[in-house]
Amino acid sequence: MTVAVLRLGHRPLRDKRITTHIALVARAFGADKMVMPVGDEVIESSVSKLVGSWGGEFSVETAKDWKSYIKDFEGSVVHLTMYGMPVDETIDKIKGDVLVIVGSEKVPRNVYDLADYNISIGSQPHSEVSALAIFLDRFFSGEGLKKDFKGKISIQPSPHSKIVK
Amino acid sequence: MTVAVLRLGHRPLRDKRITTHIALVARAFGADKMVMPVGDEVIESSVSKLVGSWGGEFSVETAKDWKSYIKDFEGSVVHLTMYGMPVDETIDKIKGDVLVIVGSEKVPRNVYDLADYNISIGSQPHSEVSALAIFLDRFFSGEGLKKDFKGKISIQPSPHSKIVK
Repeated sequence: MTVAVLRLGHRPLRDKRITTHIALVARAFGADKMVMPVGDEVIESSVSKLVGSWGGEFSVETAKDWKSYIKDFEGSVVHLTMYGMPVDETIDKIKGDVLVIVGSEKVPRNVYDLADYNISIGSQPHSEVSALAIFLDRFFSGEGLKKDFKGKISIQPSPHSKIVK
Repeated sequence: MTVAVLRLGHRPLRDKRITTHIALVARAFGADKMVMPVGDEVIESSVSKLVGSWGGEFSVETAKDWKSYIKDFEGSVVHLTMYGMPVDETIDKIKGDVLVIVGSEKVPRNVYDLADYNISIGSQPHSEVSALAIFLDRFFSGEGLKKDFKGKISIQPSPHSKIVK
């Protein structure tokens, strides 16, 4: 199964941190890659370093023609938007390979039509970072968080200390 | 019941967006307020405007002496950190009023001791925004997202449109 995240609306000068958080959430919650229409070497390099240390196979890729990328994707296309249908009413319909689109306020109107499912994580404004986390957490029934990344670095959970292995 | 979020490590010049996302997540997932050691009028004003339109009682407050704020809090003090104990093993112990501490990489060491519970949302690096969302979602058993904020503005969920009421 492949779970890909398509990040629309990334502005290299303004969005580096939010887009990096989206990439890290995608990875930590079980997705395989993040795809962006505009390449960003800073993000690609920092995520690649993190994967080298913390493990897993996560990658950041560029797809300039993002509309074709959506149309050609073989699987369910989910667009996370506060205007969509509640996640808890929709999540059971989504099986197999998934492309999860996360954008900004200015997502082009046709994304709503290209998506098989427009899904809301609550209908209140919050963050594309939290929306992606909750979607993936629901999609993997909470198991995404328990994945073993087999990294050079890992953490041993502790009640009051920082223990890095 | 009161659920407060204490945001440590906010740097007004660098963290406005991430801290705003934390405030919006806190509100959207059912918390009552966000407290910061350093006041930030831009964030206070933008969150206050949003609450005016979208409803609810959420507020942003300043507590310069954050250590006393933690010590004086009557309820469970939870610190979200990737080094802590897994959320799914810990969440059932936490009842009643909660103070949720979210920080950055540079959270002072004594926060780990001041907290009743150091809790991890997975042991991989991701984001304080997603960590807070998952914690509150688990704490409210998914009901936080279904809260009716009774705002002037609200959204009617839709499969392929944007419908604002």
